Amino acid sequence: MLEAMLSRAKAAQAALGRSATAERDRALRAMAAAVRAATDDILAANREDLARPEAQALSASLRRRLELSAAKLADLADGLEAVAALPDPLGRGSGLRTLPNGLRLEQVRVPLGVIGLIYESRPGVTVEASGLAVKSGNALILRGGREALGSNAALVRVLRGALADAGFDPDVLQLVPDPDRRWATALMHLEGLDLLIPRGGAELIRTVAREATVPVIETGVGNCHLYVDRAADLDMALAILRDGKVGNPAVCNALETLLVHREVAPAFLPRAYERLSADGVRFHGDAAARALVPAMEPATEADWAQEYLDLELAVAVVDSLDQALAHIARYGTRHSEAIVTNDYAAGMRFHQEVDAAVVYWNASTRFTDGFQFGLGAEVGISTQKLHARGPMGLEALTTVKTLAWGAGQTRDLR
Amino acid sequence: MLEAMLSRAKAAQAALGRSATAERDRALRAMAAAVRAATDDILAANREDLARPEAQALSASLRRRLELSAAKLADLADGLEAVAALPDPLGRGSGLRTLPNGLRLEQVRVPLGVIGLIYESRPGVTVEASGLAVKSGNALILRGGREALGSNAALVRVLRGALADAGFDPDVLQLVPDPDRRWATALMHLEGLDLLIPRGGAELIRTVAREATVPVIETGVGNCHLYVDRAADLDMALAILRDGKVGNPAVCNALETLLVHREVAPAFLPRAYERLSADGVRFHGDAAARALVPAMEPATEADWAQEYLDLELAVAVVDSLDQALAHIARYGTRHSEAIVTNDYAAGMRFHQEVDAAVVYWNASTRFTDGFQFGLGAEVGISTQKLHARGPMGLEALTTVKTLAWGAGQTRDLR
Repeated sequence: MLEAMLSRAKAAQAALGRSATAERDRALRAMAAAVRAATDDILAANREDLARPEAQALSASLRRRLELSAAKLADLADGLEAVAALPDPLGRGSGLRTLPNGLRLEQVRVPLGVIGLIYESRPGVTVEASGLAVKSGNALILRGGREALGSNAALVRVLRGALADAGFDPDVLQLVPDPDRRWATALMHLEGLDLLIPRGGAELIRTVAREATVPVIETGVGNCHLYVDRAADLDMALAILRDGKVGNPAVCNALETLLVHREVAPAFLPRAYERLSADGVRFHGDAAARALVPAMEPATEADWAQEYLDLELAVAVVDSLDQALAHIARYGTRHSEAIVTNDYAAGMRFHQEVDAAVVYWNASTRFTDGFQFGLGAEVGISTQKLHARGPMGLEALTTVKTLAWGAGQTRDLR
Repeated sequence: MLEAMLSRAKAAQAALGRSATAERDRALRAMAAAVRAATDDILAANREDLARPEAQALSASLRRRLELSAAKLADLADGLEAVAALPDPLGRGSGLRTLPNGLRLEQVRVPLGVIGLIYESRPGVTVEASGLAVKSGNALILRGGREALGSNAALVRVLRGALADAGFDPDVLQLVPDPDRRWATALMHLEGLDLLIPRGGAELIRTVAREATVPVIETGVGNCHLYVDRAADLDMALAILRDGKVGNPAVCNALETLLVHREVAPAFLPRAYERLSADGVRFHGDAAARALVPAMEPATEADWAQEYLDLELAVAVVDSLDQALAHIARYGTRHSEAIVTNDYAAGMRFHQEVDAAVVYWNASTRFTDGFQFGLGAEVGISTQKLHARGPMGLEALTTVKTLAWGAGQTRDLR
């Protein structure tokens, strides 16, 4: 089944990838209008999903992710129009170079080709990913969660209709119609797929990264640290800690571990505990932290490695910047790390020695985000080093092709 | 064993990655001097490798790859000095950006970290890869061919000595000392390795790409085509064909298949056959090609997919540009493809529709090469679409890190 889908996707992508910016933007606006027009049908399909036994068995937070509303659909339609308004990531060149023999080379941005997406409950991802794919000239094979199959099918039907109306082959967007797990596995091994993106929880991302034989971009696992240096402004540190832990704890750029220099721990930790406890945060402290705030629960080894994604915080007291750097090197996931300090040497070392996508000096880790970074779109936040690192804009869904214009140039023979 | 090597490599890389350009360049010049000074010892180790039964069993061409000479070592030393003279790929920034809230962001080039290399007989690769790694601030774990183990060990000993003399931790360069195949497999699954590069034959590269769970860059499989359009200058086409097939048939940017438009096949094929037969080329033609040149051997399905890397050429007559494009889409390896035509529309379509790293219009595919492209170094030629595509310079061995300077900025809370 997937081979046939891939083959249709390649054929459909060829025309999309060569189309003019204005044609793709028109299709995106048609997709937005179609989502608005079909709101009732989509919501009906979503209610059926929610009524099924699988959905009844979900936790409240997963059910919330699965649930659509007229307001959410309107936001998704607005999002498609916002993507239409972004600059085209395709067709830009690196500038023509002429080799000594007169051969002219230009490296231009082109689509990746066919992208696979494996994701979980949120049907909104179907719309967001479709918009990014169409804008960047790529075809998409979607494999959503079993519990959202009806919602996703309704959305894809609507989006495909709009694409066809705009003059594109609707096979640009295809949904794997069978929820059986083996199709997710097959997608990870679908030779010819240009990229597979897992979107969802850490477990899904790790599984795809480990199992896939097609190219993958890993996104969004963030065990982020805040290090409060001995030369920190403690008011600033507290504001950054609260923003990172309480602002939106369920996201990958939220803080998970607080490291505090021994010299400022007595002044900082009781204050931080008092303030964030009032916000509902549970603390897991090491022995030194608990000596200062005995009410903290004891931290175990598992706490240092854990991405709580919730109102929980691991706390360790460190003797030095070196110890903080070693802790981050050992447990960090290379996403976003922050130091608060007014000491130049400490800040410079932290910037230089921490190996992460984004390293903050006196600012919150919560800024690691495509929209905050001004990229206009959120393809995801890459925690890998190849191809893209940190917040990914539309350019992450493109590659380059070198075009060469000659006049018969040969290298060794004439 | 590999975990311990990786841990030592990470520690050694930290200092190398932060070192100044001048220090790394000094180390590279020290490595060059050390190779020159140790020429006798290295050649003695190489003679021992050549005298072992495994080497005696090798084909003549593989023995040639294994064999070092004083001249080859001098070239390798010169190569290290040439790398020292290249611009530093590290430390360059994208230009500071200031967000509306005053947060300042700069994306800077940093090393990948620890790179693994799996390669075959050629001990020269040990020196070339070491030079590129040191220049780009990366540590290297080398896993060479079993038949070259003594030569590689001698080279790595010399290079490590020079690194230590230049003030760097020699664990920047480490050779897997045990030739057992399981260590190659273990390297493909060494969690924490930032990149694994296979260098060698197509089989090695495919195995690594399929099996590895660490990030891989695939290089150098090239089933390259020349399409001679009906509007081609046939003299130009013949020169480009000869250059591509005869100039150096053993390399990945050599031509493997000739596609000729039916209208010019009667004028072109007999000439091409006569000229390239005199060069020693064997032709494998389809029925239409053999109707024009009966002396060609019949081509089988396998010929279209094969990278001969030798004086052999597959030939097909096509009815149209569309048929040529379909053939290339089906059998090409996305490396380098060429058209010869003076027809604007045909050339434009070929440029736009062929999915390959480099697409030539009226020039030889043999220019796909880091040195020819002016990159100054040859990390390899990527045939994948993520991270790097086409000839890779030192920048392909780097990634980016975003540094953020704040004044206490928070996103949601104060």
